[in-house]
This record gives sequence, C-alpha cells and structure tokens, in this order.
Amino acid sequence: MLPIVLASASPRRRALLEQVGLDFEVFPTDVDETVQWEEPVWAVQELACRKARAAAQASVKKDPIRDAWIIGADTVVVHRGKVLGKPADRQAAVDMLSALQGETHSVYTGVCAVRKQGTALRETAFTEETKVSVHEMEMWEIEEYADTLEPMDKAGAYAIQGIFARYIRCIEGDYCNVVGLPVARIFQEILKNG
Amino acid sequence: MLPIVLASASPRRRALLEQVGLDFEVFPTDVDETVQWEEPVWAVQELACRKARAAAQASVKKDPIRDAWIIGADTVVVHRGKVLGKPADRQAAVDMLSALQGETHSVYTGVCAVRKQGTALRETAFTEETKVSVHEMEMWEIEEYADTLEPMDKAGAYAIQGIFARYIRCIEGDYCNVVGLPVARIFQEILKNG
Repeated sequence: MLPIVLASASPRRRALLEQVGLDFEVFPTDVDETVQWEEPVWAVQELACRKARAAAQASVKKDPIRDAWIIGADTVVVHRGKVLGKPADRQAAVDMLSALQGETHSVYTGVCAVRKQGTALRETAFTEETKVSVHEMEMWEIEEYADTLEPMDKAGAYAIQGIFARYIRCIEGDYCNVVGLPVARIFQEILKNG
Repeated sequence: MLPIVLASASPRRRALLEQVGLDFEVFPTDVDETVQWEEPVWAVQELACRKARAAAQASVKKDPIRDAWIIGADTVVVHRGKVLGKPADRQAAVDMLSALQGETHSVYTGVCAVRKQGTALRETAFTEETKVSVHEMEMWEIEEYADTLEPMDKAGAYAIQGIFARYIRCIEGDYCNVVGLPVARIFQEILKNG
C-alpha cells in the first residue's frame, strides 16, 4: 500500500486511521474555510479538497519523487437545513444541543484523496452522510453536558464517541463518519485499489 | 444516581460505561450458558438476566443494606437465522467472516438491570437490535483479518470498534450495542429514572 498522508490536525481522524491499522503521516494545513456553496454536501467536499491539495502541493515540494495518498476531510452537522459547525462558546453549544435533542439530523463528511505520482496529482472526492437520532434531553442535561466542555471543538456540539453516546438513540450509516472520517469507504474505494 | 454494578468481565462493556461518564463496580459472574430458547432475542435476554441475578444475589449477601443497579448483558450475532457466538478457533472465525461479508446481519444485546433495594430485587430486561452491513471481502482479506487475532474473543468473529471498521459499510441502530452494551437505552430507560 502507498504511504498515506492525513491533511488534518484532528486527533479523532488520527485515532480512526490508527484503529483500522493503517500507517500514516500527519500534515495539517491552514486553508481559507470560506465557501460559496449553498449545499453543505458540496461545501464539505470543497473544503476537504482544499486541505488535501494544500498538503499535496507541500508534499510535491518536499519530495517530488515519492508517491502517496493525501487525504483531506471536513465534517458538518446539518439540522433542518441549518449547518452547525463548532460552537463559538457555551451558549452556542447549548443552542445547538437544544435544536438537536429529540430529533434526527445528518452528519456529512467530505473526503478528498489526492493520489500523488511524482508531481502528478489525481483527485477522488465524495461526501458521506450518516443520519443520527438524539434522545430528548432536559435543559439540565444539556447544561450539564455543555459543562463537560466535550462540545467545544466538535461540529454540532457533541462527540458521539464520548459522553454524548448516552443520548444517541440510533444512527443510520457509518459510525466513523460521525466521528469525522468514513474509514470504510476510504479504504474500500481508495486505499484498497492502490 | 444509585451505585452501578456491571455483572460482566468484558473490557468492551466496561469501556462503554466509562465513555459515558458513569461510575461503576465490576462483578463478573459464572453462570450456566445453556439456554432452551429457540429465538436468539430471548436467549440473550435470558442469559443477561442470569448474570444480573447471580451478581445481585452475591451483592445482597455482601451488603443487604446498600441499594444499587446491577446490570447483566449478553451479545450474539445472527445471520440468516443462524446464531454466531465467539469462534472456537481460526477456522471457525474464517467461516463466520465468509458468511458475514457482503451481507447484512443483526447484533442482539440482551440487557437485564436488577434494582436492588435492600434485599428486594426488581428486574427490567430488554433486547436491543442493530443491523450491520459488511462490505464484500476477498478470501485474503478474511485470512489477514483472522491472523490479527482480533476475531478470537468476539461474537461473530469481528470487532466493529477495531480493525474491522474498514469493512463495515453501514449500521442501523445503536453502535454501542454492537460493541456490547446499548448504553443510551440503559441510561434513558433505567439509570436516569433512579
């Protein structure tokens, strides 16, 4: 298998690749996150591609010879047509959780894999959706959860792989996609075929 | 919240309760696992109850005064009506994985929660189902996965929370239920109400 470069600083994405037994390097990038797309499914894919391309360019400069897969990803939560990113503060987290409780929302992770062959770059990109249903929560439960600080750096203000699992009624789709990286689809459609 | 006693030696169940921030003690029991039920959904519930009852009895002897929740659980994988437990050896693991690849199966976890109030015991039991779809696997992938030894102590010969995540196409239901304990339902229906 080709070397893998993860164009993301997210410890969750790193943990998922480690979980499925893949060796990889981490190369976080700093890209402009302003997007014009109205549809969140396109926006996450666009951002994933920006991250992967930025890392790929740096990789070409650093080592024009070596072949590799460079993977970028971006995740958002969409509820009733509204995009929920990372909460700016505690109140924003409480507002997001108040909207999500008792309802079903979608998590979209856009993925872009750049195949670097010398200086040539070939892109594959897709967006994976998982539906997530949350139990009803009392306001004191929302406040208590916000106080754990777990919501603060998470899209939609929750971590399915954390304490918030006690409020997840069910999901439909790939669990890892909600954590931040659809590893099965990445493995099946991209890495497996060299 | 009342003290919680987990009547299981499973490190996965322990990790799930820890993940959702619950304090608990572990009290594994040694019960007869022979069941007469033809339906796996009833069998797992019966076994969960035997485990919880055995731990509850020991708990009453040890400390008749203290109130607690005692939780037992049992998990099986069912594919085309056939129950898949833990594989006896490598060949059994390969056979199970060969059956599961490219298809959808169900994971059932039976749960029994015994509410100990002094010497009085009140039982609540249910079985939670999650559907799991597995990508197609080549024989070399099955063999390679069997060689990791990850399948050996897992019902159905795989760990969704391990390397096998690369082969999980999607699930429908509670992810934690596949790992071994439906923590959200336990929390929502049992622990939350004291």
